[in-house]
Amino acid sequence: MKPVKIGLLGFGTVGQGTATVLARNAAEISRRAGCELIACKALVRNTDRELPAMLSHVELVTDPASILDDPEISVVVEAMGGDEPARDWLLRAVGNGKHVVTANKALIAQFGDEIFAAARKTGVDVAYEAAVAGGIPVIKAIREGLAGNRINWLAGIINGTSNFILTEMRDKGRDFADVLTEAQALGYAEADPTFDVEGIDAAHKLTILASIAFGVPLNFDAVYTEGISEISRDDTAFAEELGYRIKHLGMARKTEAGIELRVHPTLIPERRLIANVDGVMNAVLVHADAVGPTLYYGAGAGAEPTGSSVVADIVDVVRGANSARVPHLGFQFETLADTPMLAQSEVETAFYLRITAEDQPGVMADISRILASKEISIEAILQKEPDPGSTRVPIILLTRKIREGSMDSAIAEIESLATIHGKIMRIRVESLG
Amino acid sequence: MKPVKIGLLGFGTVGQGTATVLARNAAEISRRAGCELIACKALVRNTDRELPAMLSHVELVTDPASILDDPEISVVVEAMGGDEPARDWLLRAVGNGKHVVTANKALIAQFGDEIFAAARKTGVDVAYEAAVAGGIPVIKAIREGLAGNRINWLAGIINGTSNFILTEMRDKGRDFADVLTEAQALGYAEADPTFDVEGIDAAHKLTILASIAFGVPLNFDAVYTEGISEISRDDTAFAEELGYRIKHLGMARKTEAGIELRVHPTLIPERRLIANVDGVMNAVLVHADAVGPTLYYGAGAGAEPTGSSVVADIVDVVRGANSARVPHLGFQFETLADTPMLAQSEVETAFYLRITAEDQPGVMADISRILASKEISIEAILQKEPDPGSTRVPIILLTRKIREGSMDSAIAEIESLATIHGKIMRIRVESLG
Repeated sequence: MKPVKIGLLGFGTVGQGTATVLARNAAEISRRAGCELIACKALVRNTDRELPAMLSHVELVTDPASILDDPEISVVVEAMGGDEPARDWLLRAVGNGKHVVTANKALIAQFGDEIFAAARKTGVDVAYEAAVAGGIPVIKAIREGLAGNRINWLAGIINGTSNFILTEMRDKGRDFADVLTEAQALGYAEADPTFDVEGIDAAHKLTILASIAFGVPLNFDAVYTEGISEISRDDTAFAEELGYRIKHLGMARKTEAGIELRVHPTLIPERRLIANVDGVMNAVLVHADAVGPTLYYGAGAGAEPTGSSVVADIVDVVRGANSARVPHLGFQFETLADTPMLAQSEVETAFYLRITAEDQPGVMADISRILASKEISIEAILQKEPDPGSTRVPIILLTRKIREGSMDSAIAEIESLATIHGKIMRIRVESLG
Repeated sequence: MKPVKIGLLGFGTVGQGTATVLARNAAEISRRAGCELIACKALVRNTDRELPAMLSHVELVTDPASILDDPEISVVVEAMGGDEPARDWLLRAVGNGKHVVTANKALIAQFGDEIFAAARKTGVDVAYEAAVAGGIPVIKAIREGLAGNRINWLAGIINGTSNFILTEMRDKGRDFADVLTEAQALGYAEADPTFDVEGIDAAHKLTILASIAFGVPLNFDAVYTEGISEISRDDTAFAEELGYRIKHLGMARKTEAGIELRVHPTLIPERRLIANVDGVMNAVLVHADAVGPTLYYGAGAGAEPTGSSVVADIVDVVRGANSARVPHLGFQFETLADTPMLAQSEVETAFYLRITAEDQPGVMADISRILASKEISIEAILQKEPDPGSTRVPIILLTRKIREGSMDSAIAEIESLATIHGKIMRIRVESLG
């Protein structure tokens, strides 16, 4: 299939993130999509800028028409943000029969109904996975993965800035204003933080989530919105004392009487998984009638997480345009790789070891000597008293990462010591960081 | 579009779960899919059984040919489990040009390459979302939602039985054998629990996840598999002391040398979200180069969660067959509903109230009287000492659920008391249960 040419309206965080992902993962992406996807042009204010070598193939243009009216370009990525001229140009791309992918939540929440109507007329797709919860494929999960369900409600931590602030306030007993200043210095919050901390950004995203959950038109004006600027560190502390965490939640719920749409600070029982989503991370909890609760967690912003969603949308749009189905294993059959599978002895992990030993001097020295001889480092040791009347003690070790084959031989040597009883219990350790 | 007729091979948990979801949510599903989906026949051993009224439209048949060779049936759901005759019949359905949806992880992990080759020949889809992690749309997330990424590794809690057992061992200090017996009584574990507790079921699922993550053929034989039956309650306690939880994890990792595929008990730092996935719930954590970590959580088994994934697959398969795209808002445009949006005053939630009061007798009585007059019940109270030199105390209340309008008027009345200072801080409380 011939390469698909993509034009980017805007070449800031989202635009460059998208182009970077497309370029770096070009091979992987074409193995999945069945054709090459190339970011060929990007609209900028000023072409006089340095680009990373990986993006040198992207032609910088200052006239939107050179993307919007280029017949070679079949997919336009709207990566400018804001209402205008994003809306105008997006409609022009759609009018020209181009598929559009956007990360612009404000645009979809406010003008989505108009945009989708225009897209239906020209038969193009307008995809917006990146508009909600950044890199988390939650639009896809709700629109497609939960297609068999009636959705009862959903609750999302869908603004990283406010989640970062609330997390810091709780963890460090700090005040809102103090953390906001730090968040601005770290680049997590804008100079004018209103959109984030007053919940407007979250309301845009909630508007979109509610429409795809309940099958209703986009209704941004109906969202009740309350920010986090009034929350004090006393509130976070009292909430904790009561067994709760305060999160800035977007909630959409369908009741007999109608649909609730609201963004506000919320106390959540601390044992809920979503109460433990901290820092700038996002998560959306969806409660549906057949599947029950499902939760989707990941980065809610950033160049490449957003680019990840934009690229997934481009692949979908291109498949749709080609009437191509998702290949059975996600990759085109002829591109399946014969990557070797590693034997378990070649795998590297850290280890937990529980050793039953005689409670006598020299045992730990023997164990340490054997481990050292295999270049196994000890990370932590727990040594316990023997049970009353017993002369045996459990020794618990955490090691650093080591090839499993080395651990196997160390274990065999330790087990052969006269002071060691029975088999050593060995459990692998993964930090998953 | 004309209704799609579906034949079910097997009418146990998965088959009935699927038919129930299709019947109960028929309206919602056709709003999404753009056509009706009807479970018209189910293969059973014995037609002499009572069906719930909702499933009375399903014709029970005992001859597989009456489904496999029925030209009216375009989608076959394989809901039998096991290797044979599932494999044989699935291949026959595929050979007859029928799309197949299956929840059978053992079948896909062991015979998927053969099945997909047959499907490519006749140009049909074979979809298997329900084969991994039950109702969680994780196959879709990886195959499509992360299509722009190179996946580095994934780690999954993908067997509910073993996660239930490990959770109980940790929470209650119980032994493996003891909890297993309970799990069998509760129906969470089979009479022969080998597949679950020895990791074979998880290895089937991991095989599938690794193929769609890394683009390699299915390679069940390469999975290193270790069960949880050797884990003692001492191990769960020592792990906790060291800041870890023990989980039965399926891990697939791509390294320079090759691919690791392994299922084994694993210590995970307790602060990781996935370490807090408890009971029979499942979760898959995926680490990819562009998006970073994403996590997918939900029910890993059960009639309707599995049915949820089967139905999502049917919708996808039907869309693919019709070259239909996912509608912009997930529902066919002409079916968008004009469900009313509720005013915030109509919303019911529980509340946290922080009230600053004079430290004198009668204040709590006044507050309680006003709340009672609005039918607001108090769930918990925190009363604090005044700061040195101050006569003011914070009073923190948690209420039960109440209409927000009632709370608004209660707050106004309380704020008007002479003994109350300033504004009352009011934060909504959601249990998200």
